Amino acid sequence: MLNREYTEMLREKDIIFEIFAHATKRRAEVGPERVYDFSLGNPSVPAPEAVAESIRRITAETDALALHSYSPAGGVPQVREAVAADLNRRYGTDYEGKHIFMTCGAAAALAHALRAVSNPGDEILAFAPCFSEYGPYVSGAGCNLTLVSADTESFQINFAALQSALSPRTAAVLLNSPNNPSGVVCSTGTVKKLAEVLRAKAAEYGHTIYLISDEPYRDIVFNGVDSPYIAKLYPHTLTCYSFSKSLSLPGERIGYVAVNPACDRAQGILELLPQISRTTGHNGAPSLLQRVAADCCALTSDLTVYERNKELLYSALLSYGYHCVEPGGTFYMFPRSPEADAAAFCRRAMEKDLLLVPGDGFGCPGHFRIAYCVPTEAVERSLPVFKALAEEYGL
Amino acid sequence: MLNREYTEMLREKDIIFEIFAHATKRRAEVGPERVYDFSLGNPSVPAPEAVAESIRRITAETDALALHSYSPAGGVPQVREAVAADLNRRYGTDYEGKHIFMTCGAAAALAHALRAVSNPGDEILAFAPCFSEYGPYVSGAGCNLTLVSADTESFQINFAALQSALSPRTAAVLLNSPNNPSGVVCSTGTVKKLAEVLRAKAAEYGHTIYLISDEPYRDIVFNGVDSPYIAKLYPHTLTCYSFSKSLSLPGERIGYVAVNPACDRAQGILELLPQISRTTGHNGAPSLLQRVAADCCALTSDLTVYERNKELLYSALLSYGYHCVEPGGTFYMFPRSPEADAAAFCRRAMEKDLLLVPGDGFGCPGHFRIAYCVPTEAVERSLPVFKALAEEYGL
Repeated sequence: MLNREYTEMLREKDIIFEIFAHATKRRAEVGPERVYDFSLGNPSVPAPEAVAESIRRITAETDALALHSYSPAGGVPQVREAVAADLNRRYGTDYEGKHIFMTCGAAAALAHALRAVSNPGDEILAFAPCFSEYGPYVSGAGCNLTLVSADTESFQINFAALQSALSPRTAAVLLNSPNNPSGVVCSTGTVKKLAEVLRAKAAEYGHTIYLISDEPYRDIVFNGVDSPYIAKLYPHTLTCYSFSKSLSLPGERIGYVAVNPACDRAQGILELLPQISRTTGHNGAPSLLQRVAADCCALTSDLTVYERNKELLYSALLSYGYHCVEPGGTFYMFPRSPEADAAAFCRRAMEKDLLLVPGDGFGCPGHFRIAYCVPTEAVERSLPVFKALAEEYGL
Repeated sequence: MLNREYTEMLREKDIIFEIFAHATKRRAEVGPERVYDFSLGNPSVPAPEAVAESIRRITAETDALALHSYSPAGGVPQVREAVAADLNRRYGTDYEGKHIFMTCGAAAALAHALRAVSNPGDEILAFAPCFSEYGPYVSGAGCNLTLVSADTESFQINFAALQSALSPRTAAVLLNSPNNPSGVVCSTGTVKKLAEVLRAKAAEYGHTIYLISDEPYRDIVFNGVDSPYIAKLYPHTLTCYSFSKSLSLPGERIGYVAVNPACDRAQGILELLPQISRTTGHNGAPSLLQRVAADCCALTSDLTVYERNKELLYSALLSYGYHCVEPGGTFYMFPRSPEADAAAFCRRAMEKDLLLVPGDGFGCPGHFRIAYCVPTEAVERSLPVFKALAEEYGL
């Protein structure tokens, strides 16, 4: 009588749950410094001081009634304009305020984008490895998720697999670059090739294939890495963004969908987004934080620790004999598991209080994710454990 | 190719849209004081000063990383406990923190409650008149909304209509008291009788019928009005609340579902709520505002203006010859239209720059809604227009 679909989802409780329980127990037993927790993708650097200043200033200067009142469905007009202007300045795009639909974080942005360009029963493609929540995001829109298997040598796109996964029922392709869990950034060449494939298939099928670009890590790209703005290379792109990582505000649920003005039926999509909100219980993004995000959208937290951690960890892992594609951004890397069963490897690491996540949930078995959004000292303390594990496995 | 369901929803654009366009135009033409706008349910009093103080204090005292980080799915533990304690203090209930699931406002609370206790194809009953968005809320959960016709003499429950509307497919009943648009508060007698009917039908059908109690106006009840806490009178109640009206924070999207501990399968429902979030793009309520709401949950804005406006407007309308059930709370009243076609009446009022909403969208034709969440002077200024209209209709 309770909902069967959601009851079914409860059965999925997997190794993440086991890891979390272990971490909690071991922190109490041996102290937090001796638990090497790389399991969670929560920013480790605080929001820039400008965020607190912005909250104070806005609260002091804005009439409370105006500040906390409902915003129009897509957000506060000047916020939408500020976000559009910031994107145009950074990427040479031509968004106007109306193309920006403010949402409660990237999850809500994806919920809107997916529903706008699909109908129940349609197929949505995503590329392994990808965020495990893409499954419920897509099923919530009434669609079916098809995972395109990974190119594990580069974690760019496996185009052969893409070609065979596309079908006339494919409404949209969901791309996450910089990528969770691999840390890899899709190159200009990759995105151009993807655009070509989608255009050719669209012509064959007689309908546009939309690209839903999930970009919460867009501002965490390491020095010298080619990181194109995806909507510039494929017009039919809905860009989903969150300030969670760039401004270290994951709990504040503030993000947006940016509908590319050159997108097929852009105006129609813009009209549908508020209708979607009416059915999902999304009723606008939080008002104060919308204004704060607009105030601070040109800034980021001090993200340098992530690149520092990446350098340290990546070179150490290679020297211990692990195989890993070098991350170009984010705060993740995704080495190959020393044994085929990554969950077994992660359990063995867990016995040493090293907390890693097996790649299976990301649609890419045989790998494990390291979320190195931790203080650099924590990375340093963990290295002997990675080394000991490599030795046990004879790497 | 764009979503057909949401495209279909766009066609509904009705008189509200026309009223809004008229209001915008006329404000520019004749000045805002000469447009008598009673069309929108936005609080007219600011948040209490304690809200701004709480924002400042929390931002200053809390480590930014902890403050803005993800909360667990149901919310920050101490927030959930504070809300539970406040409810227990007010109503003698026995909620614990775990029974409170923090959401992005009442819309998200209803989205979770509806999905938890229903399966696609089930029926949800609601009582006319009711919020026009119940339609999309229920269709978003994959269910069918059945409206129980109103008892227009009292705007309590029409029990004869309820008896014939209930069916074995009824998963839940959605009740909004104090009510938008009538302003009427369900009495203890009404809720007890509803509880009896639901218990009897549940026994007949062999399954619980849940009560989803939508209570954003719970704290706006006028002097001396009987206003029971509904979950105390029917155990199988999921209470959906928002701080939008009590603290004048509609834009901040902060509310909750409270699952009554004595509810049938309470634990199961609590486990489903986070799963529902995964499919709708709801990923927790905004972190800072959760803490502010917990800080301020025992307070309200100065809500006295609503009762003052009600007294003034209600007695004036009666003296002009209108028929109206006296509101017990909220900032709405719902008089009978002087002509059967309430939309025609509202258009006639609109010609005098008096903006009212016809009852048809609330499932109750022949009535119109006055949202008197405006300064008292605005009510005073509008009275001659209501009088002139009454005279035109020969009331």
